[in-house]
Amino acid sequence: ERTGYPEVIFGHGKTVSQVREIFHRLMEVHGRAMVTRATEEMAVAVQADFPDAVYDSVSRLLTCGESARRFPGKVLVLCAGTSDLPVAEEAAGTAEWMGCQVERIYDVGVAGIDRLLAYRDKLREAQVLIVVAGMEGALASVVGGLVRRPVIAVPTSVGYGAHFQGLTPLLSMMTSCAAGVTVVNIDNGFGAGYSAAIIQQLVMEACSP
Amino acid sequence: ERTGYPEVIFGHGKTVSQVREIFHRLMEVHGRAMVTRATEEMAVAVQADFPDAVYDSVSRLLTCGESARRFPGKVLVLCAGTSDLPVAEEAAGTAEWMGCQVERIYDVGVAGIDRLLAYRDKLREAQVLIVVAGMEGALASVVGGLVRRPVIAVPTSVGYGAHFQGLTPLLSMMTSCAAGVTVVNIDNGFGAGYSAAIIQQLVMEACSP
Amino acid sequence: ERTGYPEVIFGHGKTVSQVREIFHRLMEVHGRAMVTRATEEMAVAVQADFPDAVYDSVSRLLTCGESARRFPGKVLVLCAGTSDLPVAEEAAGTAEWMGCQVERIYDVGVAGIDRLLAYRDKLREAQVLIVVAGMEGALASVVGGLVRRPVIAVPTSVGYGAHFQGLTPLLSMMTSCAAGVTVVNIDNGFGAGYSAAIIQQLVMEACSP
Amino acid sequence: ERTGYPEVIFGHGKTVSQVREIFHRLMEVHGRAMVTRATEEMAVAVQADFPDAVYDSVSRLLTCGESARRFPGKVLVLCAGTSDLPVAEEAAGTAEWMGCQVERIYDVGVAGIDRLLAYRDKLREAQVLIVVAGMEGALASVVGGLVRRPVIAVPTSVGYGAHFQGLTPLLSMMTSCAAGVTVVNIDNGFGAGYSAAIIQQLVMEACSP
Amino acid sequence: ERTGYPEVIFGHGKTVSQVREIFHRLMEVHGRAMVTRATEEMAVAVQADFPDAVYDSVSRLLTCGESARRFPGKVLVLCAGTSDLPVAEEAAGTAEWMGCQVERIYDVGVAGIDRLLAYRDKLREAQVLIVVAGMEGALASVVGGLVRRPVIAVPTSVGYGAHFQGLTPLLSMMTSCAAGVTVVNIDNGFGAGYSAAIIQQLVMEACSP
Amino acid sequence: ERTGYPEVIFGHGKTVSQVREIFHRLMEVHGRAMVTRATEEMAVAVQADFPDAVYDSVSRLLTCGESARRFPGKVLVLCAGTSDLPVAEEAAGTAEWMGCQVERIYDVGVAGIDRLLAYRDKLREAQVLIVVAGMEGALASVVGGLVRRPVIAVPTSVGYGAHFQGLTPLLSMMTSCAAGVTVVNIDNGFGAGYSAAIIQQLVMEACSP
Amino acid sequence: ERTGYPEVIFGHGKTVSQVREIFHRLMEVHGRAMVTRATEEMAVAVQADFPDAVYDSVSRLLTCGESARRFPGKVLVLCAGTSDLPVAEEAAGTAEWMGCQVERIYDVGVAGIDRLLAYRDKLREAQVLIVVAGMEGALASVVGGLVRRPVIAVPTSVGYGAHFQGLTPLLSMMTSCAAGVTVVNIDNGFGAGYSAAIIQQLVMEACSP
Amino acid sequence: ERTGYPEVIFGHGKTVSQVREIFHRLMEVHGRAMVTRATEEMAVAVQADFPDAVYDSVSRLLTCGESARRFPGKVLVLCAGTSDLPVAEEAAGTAEWMGCQVERIYDVGVAGIDRLLAYRDKLREAQVLIVVAGMEGALASVVGGLVRRPVIAVPTSVGYGAHFQGLTPLLSMMTSCAAGVTVVNIDNGFGAGYSAAIIQQLVMEACSP
Ligand SMILES: Nc1ncnc2c1ncn2[C@@H]1O[C@H](COP(=O)(O)O)[C@@H](O)[C@H]1O
Ligand SMILES: Nc1ncnc2c1ncn2[C@@H]1O[C@H](COP(=O)(O)O)[C@@H](O)[C@H]1O
Ligand SMILES: Nc1ncnc2c1ncn2[C@@H]1O[C@H](COP(=O)(O)O)[C@@H](O)[C@H]1O
Ligand SMILES: Nc1ncnc2c1ncn2[C@@H]1O[C@H](COP(=O)(O)O)[C@@H](O)[C@H]1O
Ligand SMILES: [Mg+2]
Ligand SMILES: [Mg+2]
Ligand SMILES: [Mg+2]
Ligand SMILES: [Mg+2]
Ligand SMILES: [Mg+2]
Ligand SMILES: [Mg+2]
Ligand SMILES: [Mg+2]
Ligand SMILES: [Mg+2]
Repeated sequence: ERTGYPEVIFGHGKTVSQVREIFHRLMEVHGRAMVTRATEEMAVAVQADFPDAVYDSVSRLLTCGESARRFPGKVLVLCAGTSDLPVAEEAAGTAEWMGCQVERIYDVGVAGIDRLLAYRDKLREAQVLIVVAGMEGALASVVGGLVRRPVIAVPTSVGYGAHFQGLTPLLSMMTSCAAGVTVVNIDNGFGAGYSAAIIQQLVMEACSP
Repeated sequence: ERTGYPEVIFGHGKTVSQVREIFHRLMEVHGRAMVTRATEEMAVAVQADFPDAVYDSVSRLLTCGESARRFPGKVLVLCAGTSDLPVAEEAAGTAEWMGCQVERIYDVGVAGIDRLLAYRDKLREAQVLIVVAGMEGALASVVGGLVRRPVIAVPTSVGYGAHFQGLTPLLSMMTSCAAGVTVVNIDNGFGAGYSAAIIQQLVMEACSP
Repeated sequence: ERTGYPEVIFGHGKTVSQVREIFHRLMEVHGRAMVTRATEEMAVAVQADFPDAVYDSVSRLLTCGESARRFPGKVLVLCAGTSDLPVAEEAAGTAEWMGCQVERIYDVGVAGIDRLLAYRDKLREAQVLIVVAGMEGALASVVGGLVRRPVIAVPTSVGYGAHFQGLTPLLSMMTSCAAGVTVVNIDNGFGAGYSAAIIQQLVMEACSP
Repeated sequence: ERTGYPEVIFGHGKTVSQVREIFHRLMEVHGRAMVTRATEEMAVAVQADFPDAVYDSVSRLLTCGESARRFPGKVLVLCAGTSDLPVAEEAAGTAEWMGCQVERIYDVGVAGIDRLLAYRDKLREAQVLIVVAGMEGALASVVGGLVRRPVIAVPTSVGYGAHFQGLTPLLSMMTSCAAGVTVVNIDNGFGAGYSAAIIQQLVMEACSP
Repeated sequence: ERTGYPEVIFGHGKTVSQVREIFHRLMEVHGRAMVTRATEEMAVAVQADFPDAVYDSVSRLLTCGESARRFPGKVLVLCAGTSDLPVAEEAAGTAEWMGCQVERIYDVGVAGIDRLLAYRDKLREAQVLIVVAGMEGALASVVGGLVRRPVIAVPTSVGYGAHFQGLTPLLSMMTSCAAGVTVVNIDNGFGAGYSAAIIQQLVMEACSP
Repeated sequence: ERTGYPEVIFGHGKTVSQVREIFHRLMEVHGRAMVTRATEEMAVAVQADFPDAVYDSVSRLLTCGESARRFPGKVLVLCAGTSDLPVAEEAAGTAEWMGCQVERIYDVGVAGIDRLLAYRDKLREAQVLIVVAGMEGALASVVGGLVRRPVIAVPTSVGYGAHFQGLTPLLSMMTSCAAGVTVVNIDNGFGAGYSAAIIQQLVMEACSP
Repeated sequence: ERTGYPEVIFGHGKTVSQVREIFHRLMEVHGRAMVTRATEEMAVAVQADFPDAVYDSVSRLLTCGESARRFPGKVLVLCAGTSDLPVAEEAAGTAEWMGCQVERIYDVGVAGIDRLLAYRDKLREAQVLIVVAGMEGALASVVGGLVRRPVIAVPTSVGYGAHFQGLTPLLSMMTSCAAGVTVVNIDNGFGAGYSAAIIQQLVMEACSP
Repeated sequence: ERTGYPEVIFGHGKTVSQVREIFHRLMEVHGRAMVTRATEEMAVAVQADFPDAVYDSVSRLLTCGESARRFPGKVLVLCAGTSDLPVAEEAAGTAEWMGCQVERIYDVGVAGIDRLLAYRDKLREAQVLIVVAGMEGALASVVGGLVRRPVIAVPTSVGYGAHFQGLTPLLSMMTSCAAGVTVVNIDNGFGAGYSAAIIQQLVMEACSP
């Protein structure tokens, strides 16, 4: 079994009955479970078994059960435009479900740099930052330059033309001129939230071993 | 014959004697000439004929003769890092040779956004801006968001890995979230300087027809 | 806030109610607003609030309110084929809404060069030219060679096979052998119209400061 | 054995002694031979055996022996810029060696369309046209639109940045808006000259069977 | 006006009423017309005006009127698999409509080379050959090696995975080891048929000027 | 000024005298400095000024001055093959210079999985892991699955053919089936070491604020 | 006729009636037939003629008739995730239909390496192994390193973002650090099963010639 | 330790002294060793220690020691052109060193199909076939169609232009229309020879267990 949070199901490409069955199994073993990229139908099916399961249609997360732990610091999730919201919320929701306290600053694309700069203090207070951006993905570089904490960049498939379904922000985040920026797959809000959470988990465990 | 500045020679891929001969011809017809991507050898050969010819080893521009006109406003050339200098200087030198007054702000990459923001006023005073950047090319978006004047972006081949010889900043400038940004080819400082100059020429001719 | 025309909404990827609400907000602040890539449904919803709002189904522009200014010179929009019309009209409509006087020359692809050449005078009278082309995008180079004014090239996604949804004309416009051509994203008629308008705005403001 | 002109050696990637030996063999069998992409060294080695062998350092063709036939019509080879010359001459030299009468019109890039149009009559008189162009390759579309004869387009590796060693003109020639244009590999002057010659051979054989 | 066969409409991306109207116009001027990539609906609309118009649902060609001329030799159209049929028939139908006599050899993919070799004589008798192939496009090289006549290769979008919608056979036909092969765009049966026809037209006009 | 470790110089693309001068400046301001991608010549020049400066020819790091802090936990650097050593050492050296305690496990490519598995305990004890791999980059996924700590993956340009100078491991690390893996640019050992160090710095500062 | 198993129809891109007719023909000649990528409709149509035909909706294989031979050893099919099942089953079903004894080990992605390692013995007993994996395709390298038998890797289109419909595992399997791994096209379960079967057939025929 | 032939060193990217040292170690453990992509210098250094070591400058294989076993059947290595020889010989030499009996048929590109077909019997007698081809790689499909034995295809980097250093034959071999073809990395003669040898080893071990 993978060392991580094994109670997560990747909903995409699974049938409703497959998800329902795996969810059941995970609830039995772990007492909690989460489905990413869940559909409305999966939610209805799972909620028939587990009325406490919660479905969020923006992040497409379907969750059941609370995290045993609550990490002390803040994870900050930023996104460039409103169309990046589903991915940003997948990141935020994943981190929260894993025990993080998440703050959100949305719609702070670099074309209006002053909106972003108004949050300088919030940026510097965060322990880990997640930057979600489509288009050219420039937000990651600017944020990376403003803080001395880990920045996890998530390119999104939001854009058109020379954007090539997210390839452009992926490459641009990879070649960012700011140090301290690492990158996850296009639209992989889950991966970013997960990585932020295990950094916080490390902090907590290292402080009180 | 092309409508434009016909007294320009693209030095790359030409032999020294080809350049020398074309330079001679252009000097006869136009009384001035410029070679882009000129080598040291081309400079020596041309200066044998035209001792007034000036060679700049950074921009690799070899020029002879002054511009008949001097445009009133300012062209501002910005670049992100010191490795972008040859391209930035090709842009600046081209614009100057065509009659522009050029101001330069170099080494203002977005990973240290405050250095750039210190020049807000200069940015806003410029009539046309040329943004030269390699790596992820994010500078174009930030500058584009700060001004209401035309921004001409030049991706450079400066970078490595996922940068793919300039493809990444090219795509990223193309998909910039800031309006008012148009793009020229990778490393095409000449094209950017030329385009800035014809905008200024339009301004001058339109004001005093 | 971004320096530019802040009263523009990018309709693509937004819900009808999101557009309706933002439109309302912009009308209150600016007294005018424009939605690009608007759908029929967005138009109906907005027109319920603002009966004066106008929807053009070809350009997919939804606008309300007149431009305060009218720029003196002409912007010329050319396109290669009839399938490029939506992008050409997005460019033209954007420029007009920002105060430009726009002339259109459509269906002048270079495979029938004489049709284009018949408009030589019109080409040379224009202050700024927008060239919209799919397929191989050769029109930008030919037009660029005929005029000494700024040419903004827009590759379109019109084509098939080795056209790769507009990648081919994008690359071809980028490497154009004509100087004075700058390029915007595939299908980005808005960006081209916007850039043309701010050049004209520069001209006007520079002439009567 | 291949049905075609078997007396051709592709010099690239062969050693001098390999070329010398194959040349010898072909001279014995066919009484004539040609090496493409030949180096100076190959020429010297072959000329030691065959003093009549002729080497052209621009086209890099090394030939020996005359064509048995001389085709009646004209093949017209056009190229866009002076850097395309080696490829254009490879095409022209190949066609001539195979029996064609070749006319050349060089340096007629579309950025100066009037230079090309001055040759309208020559264009229309040609039986087959070969268009050699780097940069964005637009010349193929314009020429294709001006004539009703077969046009063979050769993209060249001349260019930089978004040109990607010839990929851009290759794609652009492939998606040309002009019918009657077919394309060969980047820098494949030989292939174009060969194809032109077999069209002329077909004409001759069909007329006098 | 383009020099070629101006009575052809590219149906793809046009509305039924646009096609109907252009068809009408072409019939008036030329007395004949052809629509490529025509839909059933376009056919019905056009046949309402011109009951003699013929629609072929495989090639998607909609034609009206006979060719004034009939070229003497044979055009041979080959295809590799049954899924390539629509493209092969577009090529064949175009050539026929332009006056060619077309012979077809279908389903002769190189994985069963003996099926192809059984037609050696037919291959050698043809004046021009059109090779239509998806998958890896190897048929073009094999056929090119068997004949001494022009071979026009058409890559098709038939395939999956590493085939990338036809990019693979396009590249493979481009780099064919057989001389005398030229290539048109992916799925461009029309372009191949057209090019074959103008070669035959050249033959006819050259023989009886 | 960037928030981070400002005393780092990216040596690639700079002249020896540029590096020498910047090094001097940094030593004055910070009392320590590091050059990445330093050449032998740069080392000699800098050591003339600062005899304490140390040059490591494998990692190509040129450093001077000790870190003020020493972080408590371990950073583990793994690499797949011996050719990945320069990148792995760049990561390790950077992390050490920033205050980390680094352990190295080299030559544990997944084709010999048992070699890697022998280090299970070491893997699980590490606070942060850096995985350096060329070829197909599979090591990142396997390591990611074995630990519940942050894994920073570095694709290298080591490989040939379908490896495309590192594009293949970059894409493969991006799409890793293991959660908790984030990625930096091809060959960017510095970025990985830097990111590991700021995670450890966060841990230290969070534990004793 | 191809030397192989000619009684196989590639269902994709064929009409129901085409498949029905070819199936009929193959049954007459060979007494058995198989359709890959068969749809429900094709199954119904074929079963009307041949009630013994069996359709498996996961592998989309439609088969009729038993294999004449049964090969002695085992073919082992592994897959990384449950979404890879259709491809894995296409491979398994094809091999079985051709006479192989197939064992399956599914859902053994490398992120949980211990699940895979639990099957070490089974891996080593197999004569031929087929590894089916999407995402980053790392399973092929790990399995390749564990066995000394031929490994046939099948990249799948299962994944998102930087996965590019299977391009990433294809490239990664190609550049695998384990020797003995060969690769077939994305999603080509048929090709893998076929290749495994002809290896077993070679074994059988070589042992008892 | 990897299950395979552990006594192989990949010479590329290693220093002479690294190779010499590893060679020594392998000789001690296994009594035999092989270096692929070995340079002249490596050969000299190794031969100083092991005078029996043999270096072949075409295949760049440096070997020492005989194979313990000799497999009964034949491995057939084919290549398309003379420039493919180094890769073909790497495949052949590897297979031989591992115990195979290898036959070679070189220079049988499909543009002269009859040369290949002259070897039909040899093709059918082989147990395993290795097809080495650059350009468009069509040879793999033709050979695959002629035999019912495993075909291992090796794309080579021999070609130019749209060949993209071997990407084109790689993609084309991947999408081959012939079943029974599997593919290894560009220029990976070693991998092909290795895979052929383990098939023969399987045959031998299965026959006499
Ligand atoms: N949205 C997501 N993107 C990428 N990986 C995911 C996502 N959601 C879940 N995962 C990973 O996929 C694993 C579950 O995959 P599966 O067994 O296919 O449901 C989880 O443990 C995560 O590591
Ligand atoms: N660095 C450059 N990049 C792109 N185009 C250039 C450059 N320098 C000059 N040109 C263009 O090339 C033309 C001259 O090309 P040529 O006739 O080949 O010397 C000039 O008129 C410019 O339009
Ligand atoms: N420059 C060239 N580009 C592409 N193909 C060529 C070229 N020159 C010769 N060829 C082809 O290569 C064949 C000879 O190849 P080879 O046997 O390798 O010398 C000739 O018959 C031509 O078909
Ligand atoms: N799923 C598949 N992927 C690739 N090739 C296939 C597949 N199924 C069948 N084939 C091949 O396609 C041939 C039949 O093609 P067709 O004549 O078009 O039905 C078979 O003999 C196989 O070689
Ligand atoms: Mg930072
Ligand atoms: Mg702006
Ligand atoms: Mg111009
Ligand atoms: Mg024409
Ligand atoms: Mg031929
Ligand atoms: Mg983990
Ligand atoms: Mg193995
Ligand atoms: Mg076979």
